[in-house]
Amino acid sequence: MNIQQEVLSKAMRAKCAAAKLRTASNDLRNRALAAMVSAIRSSVATIQDANSQDMRAGEQAGLSAAMLDRLLLTEERIEDMAVGLEQVAEFDDPLGMILQETVRPNGLKLQKITVPLGVIGIVYESRPNVTVDAAGLCLKAGNAVLLRGGKEAINSNIALARLLSEACDQVGLPGSCVEIIESTDREGVQQMIRLDQYVDLIVPRGGHGLVRTVTENASVPVLKHDRGLCNIYVDATCNLPGTVACINNAKVQRPGVCNAVENLWVHRDNTEALQAIIADLQASGVEVRGTEAVRGLCENVLPATEEDFDTEYLDLIISADVVDSLEAAIASVQKFTSGHTEAIFTDDPKNAGRFISEIDSACIYHNASTRFTDGGQFGMGAEIGISTNRLHARGPVGLNELTTYKWVGSADYLPRA
Amino acid sequence: MNIQQEVLSKAMRAKCAAAKLRTASNDLRNRALAAMVSAIRSSVATIQDANSQDMRAGEQAGLSAAMLDRLLLTEERIEDMAVGLEQVAEFDDPLGMILQETVRPNGLKLQKITVPLGVIGIVYESRPNVTVDAAGLCLKAGNAVLLRGGKEAINSNIALARLLSEACDQVGLPGSCVEIIESTDREGVQQMIRLDQYVDLIVPRGGHGLVRTVTENASVPVLKHDRGLCNIYVDATCNLPGTVACINNAKVQRPGVCNAVENLWVHRDNTEALQAIIADLQASGVEVRGTEAVRGLCENVLPATEEDFDTEYLDLIISADVVDSLEAAIASVQKFTSGHTEAIFTDDPKNAGRFISEIDSACIYHNASTRFTDGGQFGMGAEIGISTNRLHARGPVGLNELTTYKWVGSADYLPRA
Repeated sequence: MNIQQEVLSKAMRAKCAAAKLRTASNDLRNRALAAMVSAIRSSVATIQDANSQDMRAGEQAGLSAAMLDRLLLTEERIEDMAVGLEQVAEFDDPLGMILQETVRPNGLKLQKITVPLGVIGIVYESRPNVTVDAAGLCLKAGNAVLLRGGKEAINSNIALARLLSEACDQVGLPGSCVEIIESTDREGVQQMIRLDQYVDLIVPRGGHGLVRTVTENASVPVLKHDRGLCNIYVDATCNLPGTVACINNAKVQRPGVCNAVENLWVHRDNTEALQAIIADLQASGVEVRGTEAVRGLCENVLPATEEDFDTEYLDLIISADVVDSLEAAIASVQKFTSGHTEAIFTDDPKNAGRFISEIDSACIYHNASTRFTDGGQFGMGAEIGISTNRLHARGPVGLNELTTYKWVGSADYLPRA
Repeated sequence: MNIQQEVLSKAMRAKCAAAKLRTASNDLRNRALAAMVSAIRSSVATIQDANSQDMRAGEQAGLSAAMLDRLLLTEERIEDMAVGLEQVAEFDDPLGMILQETVRPNGLKLQKITVPLGVIGIVYESRPNVTVDAAGLCLKAGNAVLLRGGKEAINSNIALARLLSEACDQVGLPGSCVEIIESTDREGVQQMIRLDQYVDLIVPRGGHGLVRTVTENASVPVLKHDRGLCNIYVDATCNLPGTVACINNAKVQRPGVCNAVENLWVHRDNTEALQAIIADLQASGVEVRGTEAVRGLCENVLPATEEDFDTEYLDLIISADVVDSLEAAIASVQKFTSGHTEAIFTDDPKNAGRFISEIDSACIYHNASTRFTDGGQFGMGAEIGISTNRLHARGPVGLNELTTYKWVGSADYLPRA
């Protein structure tokens, strides 16, 4: 079977599976998740065999130690995947929820009801746990999943997807509820993202390059999880220790994630805050790159270029500048943001209100860390990513965001007037 | 200015206007709509001058009488546009609605709040009233609009858009809240649908060919208003006069619209219904095309091909077949539907439930006409179209569907644990 045939036939099979899944009860979907958990727990050796092939290939290909670590499936990480599926099973059923209900004056009873999206294609890189996490979330929301992982983890991904697919089959759901494209040729991605007849949504999970390629070439709708170029603005007045602690948290707690802060803007009348924040970050090992204004006020600050403010470091580095006013801060944030997350620290509620309404990002905080942009923190449970889309879902994408709705109307043999 | 420059500069200007509109109050947006109404009412002669240029060009180009009629702007039709804008102004403000509100255990207060989508690009054909209707709805929902109408109506569209833009300017909103691309070169559409940096949504309004071209080439998200290949299934038992009346309504009331029925499926045990429905449709001037089974039971039925069942007639023609069971009906509907609207007529609530849950369309009715798929009928007020998307909006697209949301979090200087 060549790659075109593989992608097409798997997408078609997933579409058929989605039609069956559409009417599967929450109980049946939960039984499939439970069967997946058992399959993973009883197949640790099989999974690790496949993973060790990927590890050997990765070593030969000269992958970095960090990359190899992301690839590695220890017993603990395999158990974590199983536990994750158990948690997904416990969430409320996102399907069949009545979002709106009215009876029109003519007697037509209208309901807006949540239903699955259909077939969700996931294009991802590296970490094999995505295979399990994504398939579990998609299944719980009644969607079939078409997986296309990176070549580094291909053997691990195939072994995991096979277990998940067999688990579906065991409980009487189609095995094609979980399909994986085994060829890692890039042509497969190009084809998959144009099969809008069979695939209802593409979720690219990976770097900015992958997201752009998918966005520019897909005819299937795309749920983007793009860059997190997050900004924090510190206003003229704020609680100093609170602000310092929150910004340290936003930069240092997990610098490699999309909700970590990258750019800092401080009001020129708040030199005290600027100096305290920067000294605190430096004490935590953060490299601070600043404009001349910042360098004139703080020690050990490297010069920042325009490009620095446009860079998602994902590292213990931050860019800093001084601004003349709230307006200037808003303009700077709007110029560099990727629309993911921003925060303002201020004691002035009016300034907070302006920042929140004038800036157009998925998540905006007043006196709280940017790190809160997270499905778990929002009380959604697991998430498949953080959407930087404007349509359909913005911010954390949990089970509810993996559904759509249909309108159901009923009446007593009613023609339109 | 060449076309690339025109499209790019207008998209950029619309983006800047959208940033201003984002914080415009409902009152200010309503004043802009009122200024548009005044401008239209005081410029009937100007609008008709521009329209008569289009009419002359259309006559010279040999447009059909029907096309010329769609193009024509009578005084009454111009007044209708003004009245439409007045109605839009009266709708509730779709912005700033709190969709969800929680306080997390850690004290983070989270709100999910409706905000504008940004810049909406409308690609449309023929009727110049779309210029006004679309711009009015977009503006009420806080969006700037980038219009690109068909060449037949270009002079009318430019004249109308200019009035709308000037009205924005009069009340202190940017004139670029309404931008129109004056070049009718197709290259302009291709460029516009790939400017995802400036345009947030494309709404193609036109035939299936236009919708496919936009879907296949856009990098901007698309809200499709695609074909309405609507199906009706008549079950083994039903109220005969009620069913006949509803199906007549679904086919005859306005055969040229997307919610008119195109395919009829009747259970083999309900010959009485089949014969009554077909005789009734024929009496209303409908051409009935049927399979051998239908032709054996009814008179004056032309033979139907497979292609007929795959055709959106938009005319007084219907395809009909007999099915052996509910399951067969569901399979037939799923095979041919465009996912827009279907209806079942039955006295058996269990069969209605299965039809509704197993079929995956935007709108499904039990004992009601397919003609109800309409923003006005749903109580939404005006609509910009009927979405056949699965993401973001399904079915009628009113003001609420022209918005997105942002998450706003506030706390008392809270780092993430």
